[in-house]
Amino acid sequence: MTRERRVITGFSNPTVKALRALREKKHRKAAGKFLAEGLRLLTDARECGHVPETLVLADRRDPHPLLSALEEAVKASGGEVIETSADILSKITGKDNPQAVAGVFGEFDTSLAALDRGGADIWLVAQALRDPGNLGTMLRTGDAIGAGGLILIDDCADPFSVEAVRASMGAVFTQRIAQARWDEFEPWLRGGPGQLVAASLRDAQPYRGAPYAAPCFVLVGNESRGLPDAYEMACDLRVTMPMKGRADSLNAAVAAAVLGYEVLAELDS
Amino acid sequence: MTRERRVITGFSNPTVKALRALREKKHRKAAGKFLAEGLRLLTDARECGHVPETLVLADRRDPHPLLSALEEAVKASGGEVIETSADILSKITGKDNPQAVAGVFGEFDTSLAALDRGGADIWLVAQALRDPGNLGTMLRTGDAIGAGGLILIDDCADPFSVEAVRASMGAVFTQRIAQARWDEFEPWLRGGPGQLVAASLRDAQPYRGAPYAAPCFVLVGNESRGLPDAYEMACDLRVTMPMKGRADSLNAAVAAAVLGYEVLAELDS
Repeated sequence: MTRERRVITGFSNPTVKALRALREKKHRKAAGKFLAEGLRLLTDARECGHVPETLVLADRRDPHPLLSALEEAVKASGGEVIETSADILSKITGKDNPQAVAGVFGEFDTSLAALDRGGADIWLVAQALRDPGNLGTMLRTGDAIGAGGLILIDDCADPFSVEAVRASMGAVFTQRIAQARWDEFEPWLRGGPGQLVAASLRDAQPYRGAPYAAPCFVLVGNESRGLPDAYEMACDLRVTMPMKGRADSLNAAVAAAVLGYEVLAELDS
Repeated sequence: MTRERRVITGFSNPTVKALRALREKKHRKAAGKFLAEGLRLLTDARECGHVPETLVLADRRDPHPLLSALEEAVKASGGEVIETSADILSKITGKDNPQAVAGVFGEFDTSLAALDRGGADIWLVAQALRDPGNLGTMLRTGDAIGAGGLILIDDCADPFSVEAVRASMGAVFTQRIAQARWDEFEPWLRGGPGQLVAASLRDAQPYRGAPYAAPCFVLVGNESRGLPDAYEMACDLRVTMPMKGRADSLNAAVAAAVLGYEVLAELDS
């Protein structure tokens, strides 16, 4: 017989506090866990083999077969199912209109060594990206273009933050994620096949129809400073998108997407 | 002789309260004004002919010729210059690390009638877009692809919110912005030349190399619901981007950018 649900009714319950603490990076790192919310996202996770260690359900939710499937999967893998109020769930996720369900997952291995570069033709690479929404959006775009994953260089936002997970729309579970310093990434990249392409403004050729080659690593830089000069110069190819107006740059996640879709089209043609 | 700066030192000063209130939509609409921050953004605005009615400077800022030029422009046009502490400026803009300068602008005319559709080959159109960051990012992308502006259909986020203005990186001053209901937009569109193109998932042709024609109106829908069926069917062209992964949609601002850059490339070729 499967375990019952644990019912929590108090805001000051230690489990609620521990779950809520996962919104902060230091507590995520200490626990090695992160939060994800929403039935669709948790179902994507389950179908990709990621079952939450803890599942938190709002007590007044509509029944749904996918919710039952999720609960069964959690119980089958020895996890815990908690039932609580919508107000407490809202406090945990920090969202005014919370989803009816949230899950706690163990963080993934984000070492470069765990990446199989031959597993995909395109990889997205972000350097010092600070906005978790941009990071989640890059994961989502990576899923769409069939990228293998997202490599985070230097000090980036945390891909396991609630904001990044939310913006990824589930792609945090389908894309591989690696984190490395530049001086770890560059030797790793040069230790095998791989073309490093920067979205750049200078000494660059038009992005349209450039000679992309798989596996192609598409690199975008920090939101306000762009890429360090040395990193740009270490690229095999620097390409630029038309800038017809006053601005001299695109949003980082937009630049990655426009370039990523171009690489996809060229590699497929 | 030009007017002196007004110095404000108190958090409870009525002017501080009035400026801070501009972070809320109802107060912006009541006042017909909005806030923008940062020397670069305010300089872009000035160079496009938009001088703030009120300029707010932090008292401990570094001198800068562009800041002096801004202050002179405000004084020359009869505006007011206020000097205050970084803490109070932070309270006004709601940002922990505020820029050294913020400005108050009168909201623009956002009627469809004020748009000159022949003035550009591409226009971006968003329907029920709820995230002000996405909206600002679309303005920024519009500037980059040489679009004429952004048309907001039905209930969208406010383009004059601090978040949208910030994400636009100044494009709120270079792009035209119109707001309309669908039943106003459609007759207006059909009252002149214009191809309406939707990013769509069904009954759609590949976005790459589709027969785009200027002036091309690129339509994206709400972040979670997409476009209403009737709106999609009213389009002249429905195109779809490859979706290689589990997800069935892109971030709205990303979809607009990938499609917008494709339209730009096809129209230029």
